[in-house]
Amino acid sequence: QAVCGLETIGVHKDDVQGKMLMLAVFLLGLLPMTSGFGGLDLDKVLLFPTQTNYSYVKITPVKPLSLTAFTLCMRVATELQGKREVILFAYRTPYFDELNVWIESDGRISFYLSGDGVFFNLPPLSTFRTHLCFTWSSSTGLAAAWVNGQRSIYRIYRKGHTIRPNGIVVLGQDPDSFLGDFDAEQSFVGEITDVNLWDEVLTAKDIKGLYSHNTLVYMPNVIHWRGAEFDKYGIVEEVKDYI
Amino acid sequence: QAVCGLETIGVHKDDVQGKMLMLAVFLLGLLPMTSGFGGLDLDKVLLFPTQTNYSYVKITPVKPLSLTAFTLCMRVATELQGKREVILFAYRTPYFDELNVWIESDGRISFYLSGDGVFFNLPPLSTFRTHLCFTWSSSTGLAAAWVNGQRSIYRIYRKGHTIRPNGIVVLGQDPDSFLGDFDAEQSFVGEITDVNLWDEVLTAKDIKGLYSHNTLVYMPNVIHWRGAEFDKYGIVEEVKDYI
Amino acid sequence: QAVCGLETIGVHKDDVQGKMLMLAVFLLGLLPMTSGFGGLDLDKVLLFPTQTNYSYVKITPVKPLSLTAFTLCMRVATELQGKREVILFAYRTPYFDELNVWIESDGRISFYLSGDGVFFNLPPLSTFRTHLCFTWSSSTGLAAAWVNGQRSIYRIYRKGHTIRPNGIVVLGQDPDSFLGDFDAEQSFVGEITDVNLWDEVLTAKDIKGLYSHNTLVYMPNVIHWRGAEFDKYGIVEEVKDYI
Repeated sequence: QAVCGLETIGVHKDDVQGKMLMLAVFLLGLLPMTSGFGGLDLDKVLLFPTQTNYSYVKITPVKPLSLTAFTLCMRVATELQGKREVILFAYRTPYFDELNVWIESDGRISFYLSGDGVFFNLPPLSTFRTHLCFTWSSSTGLAAAWVNGQRSIYRIYRKGHTIRPNGIVVLGQDPDSFLGDFDAEQSFVGEITDVNLWDEVLTAKDIKGLYSHNTLVYMPNVIHWRGAEFDKYGIVEEVKDYI
Repeated sequence: QAVCGLETIGVHKDDVQGKMLMLAVFLLGLLPMTSGFGGLDLDKVLLFPTQTNYSYVKITPVKPLSLTAFTLCMRVATELQGKREVILFAYRTPYFDELNVWIESDGRISFYLSGDGVFFNLPPLSTFRTHLCFTWSSSTGLAAAWVNGQRSIYRIYRKGHTIRPNGIVVLGQDPDSFLGDFDAEQSFVGEITDVNLWDEVLTAKDIKGLYSHNTLVYMPNVIHWRGAEFDKYGIVEEVKDYI
Repeated sequence: QAVCGLETIGVHKDDVQGKMLMLAVFLLGLLPMTSGFGGLDLDKVLLFPTQTNYSYVKITPVKPLSLTAFTLCMRVATELQGKREVILFAYRTPYFDELNVWIESDGRISFYLSGDGVFFNLPPLSTFRTHLCFTWSSSTGLAAAWVNGQRSIYRIYRKGHTIRPNGIVVLGQDPDSFLGDFDAEQSFVGEITDVNLWDEVLTAKDIKGLYSHNTLVYMPNVIHWRGAEFDKYGIVEEVKDYI
């Protein structure tokens, strides 16, 4: 009797349709994922139209930011690149800037885990949206920035460090005290959306998928943009958007 | 009885399912080849995080570098482009720089086969990885650089020359003597991977394939990154990577 | 007994297999066309490796260049863009530059039909090959440059003019007399191939096809690169090339 491979699939009489279904499912699995979890939905975009020292948004995280690794992503558009410092993300506990992301005045992008930062030479942000991610792991110290799915050169940064919990997450301003002392010259002006935070380092493939199809292979388990509660202060518009 | 092969699929009464399977097999054949010989495996990336005069990696070649033609490829990311000289690859015998690849301080990329070099005006390297190849043939003198699968203008260079065997292959530093006299201001800072060397000139199609799918149509027969032994000195991190 | 192969598809009563075959043909139609008329053949590339006032190539046209319309195409790579004037194509009768194509010292590309030229602001040429075409019609005066299949803005130029026959076609140098008075500072340095000339204005679709697949929908009836006779003088290398 015939040995040999694939033929054993075709044996029984009428489970044909079952196999057709399996095949269809299999073939579907080969298609590029354009939907996935929330892929094509409308979603909210925060617009900070003007420079102020009082407009900001407080985000309530899913769980405390006690982190020894993270992936932080966002889509951001700003015309301020290279003109002055611009705050992109701030997480602050009473006495420390725990996880702050900046555009530096020289155009580099950086993040700071209490103390000196780590700097990346990336293509300039612009009026068009850029997908930015930052990854860091305490165990290896490997830190990277990701622009539209492409990874920068790794830096070795803050090996062994832990980000402290029970702070406040703010978009639009850099709080120099627990929630105040804002500087208009560091405020964010532009659009920001899809700010998600995981407590682990996602793979290159997952980050490419986030950029290309907005697929969330792993639910963001620290900040989840789609479900997050926002408290808006000052001049911030919430606009809807087609991805 | 049936001989193994696709025909066994089409045997039974209403062989619809056989055809579906054949269709599936056929459709699979249309998918872009991302595997091939080593395509999707994890592979090692060398990270030189900081400028030093003591960090380097010695690679043991498969066979001596007695060459009258070559293809040398690598994937490289560096933010130093155009700021100073940067060594990308060094193969040195006791008295000669046999095959050295440089970023020049004016941003051009060059290679040197003992003596004056040959220079290419290429798009700048960046924090994102660029696939670089260099080809040269003693019989024609044709020398070229390849960026992400695209060839530069040919140069005529060192017709009749032979690269001498029994030297040392070094990444990260330029040895001004057999294995020493390193200059931090010429050291490599960044990431480098997929350094492969053949003793012949690959075709344009093969080089495009290397860039796009990481397919090694011809096994690298002089330096084979995947199998090579590395001796690491100083501050060099080996990180894993998904292509 | 069954012989292995695809033939089992085409046998049986119901026309399942017919539909499968149609599907297969349909799917094949979705594959990118890489062949076409001459698509994958080797072809000659002229390499002018250094600046001289004596290296050039004379091309014998298929018929005299008595033209009231034309499409002139070429693939060209040069690193001289924007550094000095560079001649790309010269057709001269005893007293006139009948059809000369230039890179100007300010980086613009131009052509001249005896007298003042017409100028185009195009992306810079580089060490990688650019597909360039120029079209002009005496009846409308419409002149355009085409870069990798994309048309520039039209200019109105030399309405009613006729290009005179019985001159000489030269690559590499600009003849200031019938065939002499070459200036090294205007010579071509780089690679040039696929120089074809028609006595009519090709459609946008045809020009895109030329760029993408190297398909010659209409045989070039004035200069036909593939069949043309070349007389080479000075330092000019003829290298083979895979498109």
